[in-house]
Amino acid sequence: MTSDNLPRGIDRRALVSSLVLLPALSTTLLSPAAEAQTILPLASWNEGPAKQSIIDFVRATTDQGSAKFVPAEDRIATFDQDGTLWVEHPIYSQVMYCLDRVPDVAAAKPELKHIDAFKTVLSGDREAMAKLSLSDLEKILVATLTGMPVETFQAEVEKWLATARHPRWKRPYTDMTYQPMQEVLQYLRDNGFKTYIVTGGGQDFVRVYSQRVYGIPVEQVVGTMGGTKFGYDMNGRPFLTKEPKLLLNNDKAGKPEGIHLMIGRRPHAAFGNSDGDREMLEYTGAGDGARLMVLVTHDDEQREYAYGPARGLPATKFGTFTPALDAEAKKNGWTVISMKNDWKRIFAFE
Amino acid sequence: MTSDNLPRGIDRRALVSSLVLLPALSTTLLSPAAEAQTILPLASWNEGPAKQSIIDFVRATTDQGSAKFVPAEDRIATFDQDGTLWVEHPIYSQVMYCLDRVPDVAAAKPELKHIDAFKTVLSGDREAMAKLSLSDLEKILVATLTGMPVETFQAEVEKWLATARHPRWKRPYTDMTYQPMQEVLQYLRDNGFKTYIVTGGGQDFVRVYSQRVYGIPVEQVVGTMGGTKFGYDMNGRPFLTKEPKLLLNNDKAGKPEGIHLMIGRRPHAAFGNSDGDREMLEYTGAGDGARLMVLVTHDDEQREYAYGPARGLPATKFGTFTPALDAEAKKNGWTVISMKNDWKRIFAFE
Repeated sequence: MTSDNLPRGIDRRALVSSLVLLPALSTTLLSPAAEAQTILPLASWNEGPAKQSIIDFVRATTDQGSAKFVPAEDRIATFDQDGTLWVEHPIYSQVMYCLDRVPDVAAAKPELKHIDAFKTVLSGDREAMAKLSLSDLEKILVATLTGMPVETFQAEVEKWLATARHPRWKRPYTDMTYQPMQEVLQYLRDNGFKTYIVTGGGQDFVRVYSQRVYGIPVEQVVGTMGGTKFGYDMNGRPFLTKEPKLLLNNDKAGKPEGIHLMIGRRPHAAFGNSDGDREMLEYTGAGDGARLMVLVTHDDEQREYAYGPARGLPATKFGTFTPALDAEAKKNGWTVISMKNDWKRIFAFE
Repeated sequence: MTSDNLPRGIDRRALVSSLVLLPALSTTLLSPAAEAQTILPLASWNEGPAKQSIIDFVRATTDQGSAKFVPAEDRIATFDQDGTLWVEHPIYSQVMYCLDRVPDVAAAKPELKHIDAFKTVLSGDREAMAKLSLSDLEKILVATLTGMPVETFQAEVEKWLATARHPRWKRPYTDMTYQPMQEVLQYLRDNGFKTYIVTGGGQDFVRVYSQRVYGIPVEQVVGTMGGTKFGYDMNGRPFLTKEPKLLLNNDKAGKPEGIHLMIGRRPHAAFGNSDGDREMLEYTGAGDGARLMVLVTHDDEQREYAYGPARGLPATKFGTFTPALDAEAKKNGWTVISMKNDWKRIFAFE
């Protein structure tokens, strides 16, 4: 397709800059998929105000003639992960990983078998596990996420991802990403935005698959940060151990704090789906010029789940979407996505 | 100059990729300076093993036919700042900034005037100030670097940089960067490396000028990290305050820990000049494939300073270059730079 027969509504400059922005060292030609993606951004989105607000934002910030033009280095877009980029129900994947790791960890540290939370998980009683308190879960998270070299942790997560399946779709968790959001990531990158994950999940956990699943390099993952400890093995070779030390809980007010720490710039666009993302959206919105604040709402029981403002149900054991957040979004003119109405399809495998 | 009449010894592929790597959205043409830089890398370096080791490393890691080829996304190079990228004598610029800020801070918080360390600084007695203990200086650093919105801090540092002068050269501190190291940064970037500053200095301090001075964007500055606190001003507008809370002391063992936290990849090249950089160099060297570990030594009293292994003097009040580090460098085959012998010139303004 030449630039002379582009479909109506396609911004030629955006197309050209997206071509220019192809990875500089890549020697591959444009794949047909990439070309389709570029020419028809947001293909899995229904027409409507949500899709339009994203397109309007990108045009305003990338058009050099626009009063809202944003220089390339400031084009930062941040995305919550659980419930925003992929399915968070019935339980965060990372929590599932930690539960699945308990037998191995308890075998290595038998003293854990006498602690109630671990007993419950080892019993295999899913109903009892679902009732574990937040503080019990935290004990399990610390025991299963720390105390090992960073490379061992990465290998364990890789191994788990290869075999674990989502209970409803019986597919790898890494298949459970929302195709319309993958298109937003790509569309923003095609227009010179640097896309970041800003998640309450563990930074090291998400980094294991961020490039493969979202096209986001490890250094663009901002998550809950644990400390590591530098030391030497028996052969004098240095290595880093994951420590049970919390540096930053990257949730709620921790999200803008984590963004400042890791990125050092205020985002121009931020995407979330729960009260855990409120401060990130507020911080983004408090900047000058064009800013895009987006909330995904889960109102599609048939194709995904219905909870949050649609049902008054908490988002997960960890997160909520309160009526107050809903009201704040409306008051501030944030873009609210209805999965049911705005998305033609939910998953790439459909 | 066409590719057919390149001077001998110029790698054509490196030249082509460096042209490809020009900022994608830039509309400016190659400036004569940039062209010279690209065609003659490391122009301010004398021929010798130090220069050669850098060139050999770049060739080995960027030549697709090389067994040591490194894919673009893994081309990470980390640089200490003080004493490696710019002058650290007679005192770190950031410490000078903090001392210069004391009168303003004490005016706003008169209770500080009764604390000995602040009294000494307020007296203006440079000799007494030079004798301040590390713990006294830490009190001054905390008082002058925290307790304000991040934007206020940035503005204060900008203001200071515009007027402060190095006591010996009477030039802005931002002029005190080593031209040969600027060329290494550029040469590595021209070859697809992502260059990071990994400094014991304050992350937010260095970020104020990293782009302008080194061409390094704020998100590629890893420094000593303080916490921030999210809150709202009287108008309900959210903002971040710099807190007197240390998240990570990015020095010694903290450097590989900070690299894991902020970058998530092991560097392929690391540059330092003191014992504070030892663990970063060791961590870099412990990776597979081609790795480049470099130590700058200060042995040029006439053009800069002579200290460290050249004189057995400590690097600064904060840092040292011990004989043990010198021995480790030799044992491990690290590249040791003699400023006197390896560098044709030290500063761009010479």
